[in-house]
Amino acid sequence: MHTREDDVLSLDEESTYPYAPEFLHFIDEAATVYHAADYFKRELIDAGYVELKESEDWIPKLKLGGKYYLTRNSSTLLAFAIGSAYKPGSPVAFIASHIDALCLKVKPVSNSGNAAPKGGFDRLGVAPYAGGGGAQRWDGSYSTWWDRDLGLGGRVLVQTKDGSVKEKLVKLPNPVARIPSLAVHFGEPARGPFNYETQMVPIIGLTRNAEGKEEIIDGSLGKLHSARVLKAVAHELGVNPTDIVDFDLELFDFQKATLLGLSGEFISAPRLDDKLCSFSALTSLINATSDNSFMASSEVVSMVGLFDMEEVGSGLRQGAKGNLVQTVINRIVEAQVGLKEEEKSRYTTNLIGQTLGRSFMISADVTHAYNPNFDGIYLEGAAPALNKGVVIAADPNGHMTTDASCNSELQLFQIRNDSRSGGTVGPTLSERLGCRSIDMSIPQLSMHSIRAMTGAGDPGIGVQFFEGFFRGYQAVQAKVLVQ
Amino acid sequence: MHTREDDVLSLDEESTYPYAPEFLHFIDEAATVYHAADYFKRELIDAGYVELKESEDWIPKLKLGGKYYLTRNSSTLLAFAIGSAYKPGSPVAFIASHIDALCLKVKPVSNSGNAAPKGGFDRLGVAPYAGGGGAQRWDGSYSTWWDRDLGLGGRVLVQTKDGSVKEKLVKLPNPVARIPSLAVHFGEPARGPFNYETQMVPIIGLTRNAEGKEEIIDGSLGKLHSARVLKAVAHELGVNPTDIVDFDLELFDFQKATLLGLSGEFISAPRLDDKLCSFSALTSLINATSDNSFMASSEVVSMVGLFDMEEVGSGLRQGAKGNLVQTVINRIVEAQVGLKEEEKSRYTTNLIGQTLGRSFMISADVTHAYNPNFDGIYLEGAAPALNKGVVIAADPNGHMTTDASCNSELQLFQIRNDSRSGGTVGPTLSERLGCRSIDMSIPQLSMHSIRAMTGAGDPGIGVQFFEGFFRGYQAVQAKVLVQ
Repeated sequence: MHTREDDVLSLDEESTYPYAPEFLHFIDEAATVYHAADYFKRELIDAGYVELKESEDWIPKLKLGGKYYLTRNSSTLLAFAIGSAYKPGSPVAFIASHIDALCLKVKPVSNSGNAAPKGGFDRLGVAPYAGGGGAQRWDGSYSTWWDRDLGLGGRVLVQTKDGSVKEKLVKLPNPVARIPSLAVHFGEPARGPFNYETQMVPIIGLTRNAEGKEEIIDGSLGKLHSARVLKAVAHELGVNPTDIVDFDLELFDFQKATLLGLSGEFISAPRLDDKLCSFSALTSLINATSDNSFMASSEVVSMVGLFDMEEVGSGLRQGAKGNLVQTVINRIVEAQVGLKEEEKSRYTTNLIGQTLGRSFMISADVTHAYNPNFDGIYLEGAAPALNKGVVIAADPNGHMTTDASCNSELQLFQIRNDSRSGGTVGPTLSERLGCRSIDMSIPQLSMHSIRAMTGAGDPGIGVQFFEGFFRGYQAVQAKVLVQ
Repeated sequence: MHTREDDVLSLDEESTYPYAPEFLHFIDEAATVYHAADYFKRELIDAGYVELKESEDWIPKLKLGGKYYLTRNSSTLLAFAIGSAYKPGSPVAFIASHIDALCLKVKPVSNSGNAAPKGGFDRLGVAPYAGGGGAQRWDGSYSTWWDRDLGLGGRVLVQTKDGSVKEKLVKLPNPVARIPSLAVHFGEPARGPFNYETQMVPIIGLTRNAEGKEEIIDGSLGKLHSARVLKAVAHELGVNPTDIVDFDLELFDFQKATLLGLSGEFISAPRLDDKLCSFSALTSLINATSDNSFMASSEVVSMVGLFDMEEVGSGLRQGAKGNLVQTVINRIVEAQVGLKEEEKSRYTTNLIGQTLGRSFMISADVTHAYNPNFDGIYLEGAAPALNKGVVIAADPNGHMTTDASCNSELQLFQIRNDSRSGGTVGPTLSERLGCRSIDMSIPQLSMHSIRAMTGAGDPGIGVQFFEGFFRGYQAVQAKVLVQ
């Protein structure tokens, strides 16, 4: 009945969302999956991680307190640190997440067939990647790619003077492409469904020289792509168009990520799925393992894996991904770091068994936050909210010590019995009996849209929780062994 | 078979698109129809135009060489200049265009019913304006408003200390709203068609105080809108929330207008329809009438009209718009400016008849440029292109004098016999016999999208042509009277 009085003078103290600015900066940098990998690699090197190659001998390189990373075809990244108090058979604490997103990739032949210049416009042939895998032809698909300002970037192979081939990353400084929609005035043809191959071809400019003869860069790439694209890329790299051997480019949303909402409590950004988790997982690893007191007393191997192409599995590869982690762990355990040669045991398979028995894996992904405009399809009172916490199922009680500064609690999540897709995660018991893995996720809205939305605090909440996981795992694990 | 050699050193000279930067600046300023009107008013005042009110006597104010403007409910604007060589019965040169666009208007009651806070989100009730007029419930309408960062702005009435009510314009500095799409993972419900009333409600923040009691600004507006919106608007205006008497706000695309294309030959901007023509028409009027040598020798009345609400016609208003122009012209002619009292003729109706017989009206609008992805629906070889010229039907031959500096030619335009909507503009004969009006337009792509596209040179081309029209009309008109 009365109104509170002192509000005219000032808003509440400026409330910071930790890691929000870094995350925004990261998204703007990580225009493509290659820029993301490159960005993480530099972070690891700055934190003192050393590179390992699968094809060489690791025995002489592994040391207590060592920090290492390895990559496979430059978009899969795996990083680990061995605690200084490590003994053979100690457990591995592992977080897995995938690093790629859906986007529009430039085709190997990008300027002929349905992408040939037409009506005075230059166009670019692209193929939707993943999400659109097998886009159906007659679906009434909204798509949020229409009428957006798109940038061009990715990876380029250039031939240097001495004949060797180096890899470079490129990102053009201005928006260059757009998929123009047809005005609704045209009635039926404007209502879709649309054909990806012929009606969603981005345009990149006006055809210049009038008499139809367009110039061709010689060399094998010249026949496959238009000269203007090759020259723009070359000019950006400061090389000759004829030095470009090959490239892997994609279109991305050129608009910057930004805070949103009356008091900036949201983040609106492209490429959230799944930069959100990789950023949180890796940042927490670096924070934990840059703390020497933690490394001094830690006897576990802390590990993070960021995988490319999970959405695509053929029989054979599946095995391989499984056994990248498998192989790396086996090679670490077999080294039995910290023991002298003669006191190493020969029962390595048993050591591996013991290690696995004590290991723990978190597989992180994004999930759907509650969308207030589509109320009817969530279970009442059990859909996750933004800025609240990471999403999990159970409630570990009473032995994690409480730090004074944060009140991060978990949210539980369950879906209706009558909707089609349902992965159930059964209730899991406490850590006493030894367990394998768990699914955790960070909430976001409008997944798979070109521009998604999350809470401004969710990146920080992720970092904070994963760090707690790395730091407290040992203590938790110790009480496992008493009776 | 050979490639040209000297291309590695430099691109062609930097090619400027006249008026491109000013137009970009204008679009960013004209966030709403009120900001547009306000922007034009300041331009006119700077050029020395004087305001007239419909409800007062104009006879003592009209002079040879005078420049005037009048407004109706602050979003319809009419400006004219009387040439110094004007005689009663001389013609009027008139350009008409409409100034409003389709947008999302804030409802009079914006925070209850389907817009009530839900699931911890604050939302804003909006009504689609014009284009959505009579949105059908089951239409498969794509809409480019999903997942965009939206700003809030418009017109506010505030009560000043002395009890009077003043009008102010407001534009919040950050994006505050967004319409979040549902992820495709949810299958059918995510495929639309969508209900405007319940599923496209923008969200503007997270609900703050937990126990459901939200504060209310007292005063009559307090019951109709949420406190956070009122406080944000008040804070931006530097006044008290309780001083706001009423407002008329809308949501707009917060992203700035920008150049696009490999060599920036496009403009990608929101609110093109129909800021494009009003900008060109008014700028050309100001340029022509700020040139004294032109005013000294001109005997015509040069006039521009920018109308709000053309899309909406009820029986009664229709009459009125017609006769705003009618009334203004009658009042100018009746004044017989430049004659002394006793040599004025009493046959004013005949003078009006003579004037009309010599007058000429251009009604300007935007039209659809050729869209290369939807080829099948244009007449072969007759769809307008960007950066080429304004669109018209006939070919005035040989008496317009050629200025050395520009090569602006016209494009002709015709549509297929078998598509539904078609206004045909019959061929018109030469100006000898006396004619009335003509339709002209400037091409653009993706009309009615939240973000449309035009050529970077088209605004300038418009300005240039309309200026030619004002300057050369008299000469053209003179040769009308010989035989």
